[in-house]
Amino acid sequence: MAKGASLSGFPEWLPSERAVEQRVIDTVRKVFELNGFLGIETRAVEQGSSLLKKGETSKEIYLLSRLQEVGSESDTPVEDRLGLHFDLTVPLSRYVVENSGALTFPFKRWQIQKVWRGERPQEGRFREFVQADIDVVGNGDLPEHYEVELPLVMVSVMEELRAFGMPKATVHANNRKLSEGFYRGLGLTDIEGVLREVDKLDKIGAEEVTKLLVQECGADQSQAEACLALADLTADDGSSLRLGFETLCERYNINHDTEAYTLASEGLATLAMIVDEAAKIRPGAVIADLKIARGLDYYTGSVYETFLDGAPALGSVCSGGRYDNLATQGKKRYPGVGLSIGLSRLVSYMLHSAGAKPSRVSPAAVLVAVWDEESRSVSNGIAAQLRKRGIAADVSPSAAKLGKQIRYADHLGIPYVWFPANSGDSPEDSKGEQVKNILTGEQQNADCLSWMPDTVYAQQSVQIEDKAQA
Amino acid sequence: MAKGASLSGFPEWLPSERAVEQRVIDTVRKVFELNGFLGIETRAVEQGSSLLKKGETSKEIYLLSRLQEVGSESDTPVEDRLGLHFDLTVPLSRYVVENSGALTFPFKRWQIQKVWRGERPQEGRFREFVQADIDVVGNGDLPEHYEVELPLVMVSVMEELRAFGMPKATVHANNRKLSEGFYRGLGLTDIEGVLREVDKLDKIGAEEVTKLLVQECGADQSQAEACLALADLTADDGSSLRLGFETLCERYNINHDTEAYTLASEGLATLAMIVDEAAKIRPGAVIADLKIARGLDYYTGSVYETFLDGAPALGSVCSGGRYDNLATQGKKRYPGVGLSIGLSRLVSYMLHSAGAKPSRVSPAAVLVAVWDEESRSVSNGIAAQLRKRGIAADVSPSAAKLGKQIRYADHLGIPYVWFPANSGDSPEDSKGEQVKNILTGEQQNADCLSWMPDTVYAQQSVQIEDKAQA
Repeated sequence: MAKGASLSGFPEWLPSERAVEQRVIDTVRKVFELNGFLGIETRAVEQGSSLLKKGETSKEIYLLSRLQEVGSESDTPVEDRLGLHFDLTVPLSRYVVENSGALTFPFKRWQIQKVWRGERPQEGRFREFVQADIDVVGNGDLPEHYEVELPLVMVSVMEELRAFGMPKATVHANNRKLSEGFYRGLGLTDIEGVLREVDKLDKIGAEEVTKLLVQECGADQSQAEACLALADLTADDGSSLRLGFETLCERYNINHDTEAYTLASEGLATLAMIVDEAAKIRPGAVIADLKIARGLDYYTGSVYETFLDGAPALGSVCSGGRYDNLATQGKKRYPGVGLSIGLSRLVSYMLHSAGAKPSRVSPAAVLVAVWDEESRSVSNGIAAQLRKRGIAADVSPSAAKLGKQIRYADHLGIPYVWFPANSGDSPEDSKGEQVKNILTGEQQNADCLSWMPDTVYAQQSVQIEDKAQA
Repeated sequence: MAKGASLSGFPEWLPSERAVEQRVIDTVRKVFELNGFLGIETRAVEQGSSLLKKGETSKEIYLLSRLQEVGSESDTPVEDRLGLHFDLTVPLSRYVVENSGALTFPFKRWQIQKVWRGERPQEGRFREFVQADIDVVGNGDLPEHYEVELPLVMVSVMEELRAFGMPKATVHANNRKLSEGFYRGLGLTDIEGVLREVDKLDKIGAEEVTKLLVQECGADQSQAEACLALADLTADDGSSLRLGFETLCERYNINHDTEAYTLASEGLATLAMIVDEAAKIRPGAVIADLKIARGLDYYTGSVYETFLDGAPALGSVCSGGRYDNLATQGKKRYPGVGLSIGLSRLVSYMLHSAGAKPSRVSPAAVLVAVWDEESRSVSNGIAAQLRKRGIAADVSPSAAKLGKQIRYADHLGIPYVWFPANSGDSPEDSKGEQVKNILTGEQQNADCLSWMPDTVYAQQSVQIEDKAQA
């Protein structure tokens, strides 16, 4: 259905697909709340001036204009116009500054909302999609321990989503200070440029990146080689990370008595702490991977990307990092660390690659049959009693032949059909209330004031279709 | 906070306020699902041509343009541009037509989403707000019983929302056929015009409406008087409705042998059925009120507005009706009936007039204290155990003095503070795990593998502040 979206880049789900997405969102929210994050929602629009701050993404903005402004839209500078937010980080930084007096810091917030990107839609890219973010924002300072706790919350989320068919996820962490210190130690100065090119490694390969480092960032062949050697370093514990890094420093003559090295070792210490602390709680869930660069220039320390076993095509499904300077207010500074999941892409994977589907299309566990339109209020009364006790119930659209009513339940996946008491033409025909499980064929006498569905049929849930069977 | 929104018309809530909104949305969704409605979400944008179909609202549209299009936006006709949806009905009609082959009819759907109106914001009017809609859409035909069942679902919703401080709600129903037949019987022909003017009754009063009927709709004084007499008719059962209507027909010489009267009696029969059937299930919840007109021209039968006891300033909080021709596809017709709640306005009322507030700001029931940064992983481990058993837990931001850690819990309304085992300096000082309810002062030994919070503190909930006390 995303494939068949009538407007390219704007996915829309069928009710059965939306049921999966809804339960994914419920699950993600549950994990966020269990971890004590506060939910907020921000308006869909921001001032153009806020959206344009982040240079790299300016091309992706949708600007708004009221119908009355058509023809004179360009009279207003883009900075003064409203645009749709393209992420949840820019709105968060504004929200924190505007409401700083009313918030408790460190401010831990979750936010699940749609974002929009006004780009030319490419294969698998959405112009509208749901993002699920957590961030912790400090007032003035922010303890480092959040840099390991937040990726671990996202690991918990990804673990919960395995029930929806997602593969195991691994967070790959790096640290901007480590990379910057190393590059400076090599004698490079265009740090943002180097990060931008290294970020392309997975897409264009080492050879092309080497060329770009030389052509665009003023690197010589040996410096470029060093950048790639650093990017090649991975480790799942702090001591092997340190060892690998020191080996590189030695090989490329990076002197310990330099500011560059001091900066790098700050980043190294944080990164080593992250992998070691994470390993205590979830061994193997977070590794150091020094090719992680992240294109966005507001990160100042830790950066994260998350990859799925056996689904490299999906790329990073959860990314983020630490930003010390995103939000400021006069002399006040609000450093933060946060990660973001692109939920729509995950849901698309669950539906189209993992075989996730709802146990039933309708939330109703019961369809109450209707013998004739005159007695519809009897059927409505039964449904009302069931709902009072938390059992979702629908009532048959029409007093059609029973077979047709059962087909309606079947189409919607409603497991039970309820038959109201039927006086019948003769005493022998008269029956009390009965309920039939149309999946098992089992039929029994029942009282709508006390009957309960079997646990497995009580709630709509999500199942993974056995591809071999299907 | 809505008052203090930094952008007029775009409300944003503080975390404590959002907690109320979130639980309102959860509650509304629960009622929709209990009644067997399927949840969908539609994209935020529609083609300009779809949005402009409904003439009356064209002024309220926000159009989109990509940043690259700035300066040349007007080259594209408005019909071919994208705009943000201003309701959930236009998207539904498109969705049904596009997906008709994959849906089960009658299609019962709920949808809770933001909508946008590009109007000049007036007092209390939002440019961005959350709407909660239910509709039933048939394929070809749609049984009349939905015209009483849908308003009753909304009555259930409003009943549930009384826990959030909302007053009792009453649905006021009318029928377009009844009004149109009556107006035609009087000899009037500009039916849309008359409906539009009668719709203004609450705002500008009978005298002004009379003037407008004469000036704008070609009515003479007696015809205008008759329109107002009809609008004055209310009834809470079918027979007194019939009696009142027949009295008016007699007084204004509306002949039974006319097409106009036949049309009116069709509407009368439906409206009488609605109030009588609704009274069986929820006496007094739905009344006939013949001044209900609804400005929108796509309604073809029943129309509804919902008013709150003691809150006339809020106007109608839930409106809708039957539309036989909103969605068509070639010769196919998809008649529907639906109602829509403007949730943001209700939440605003709850927060600012009814004193609704969350039992705590944080979803966490427990804050785990941290003795020193070295033992933070012990505190993290305790929190992880609690979360595993569904108990939301936060961990103290820093190993500050205990008083400061407790203040952090207090600010967020977290009821319990957990003290990890403390080896102490001497054997007498050493203590096992303990948990303290900081609201009651009660402190006890506890084991994070088995301890449960008191039920009243288990989940974040919404309370109504006693205004007298406050």
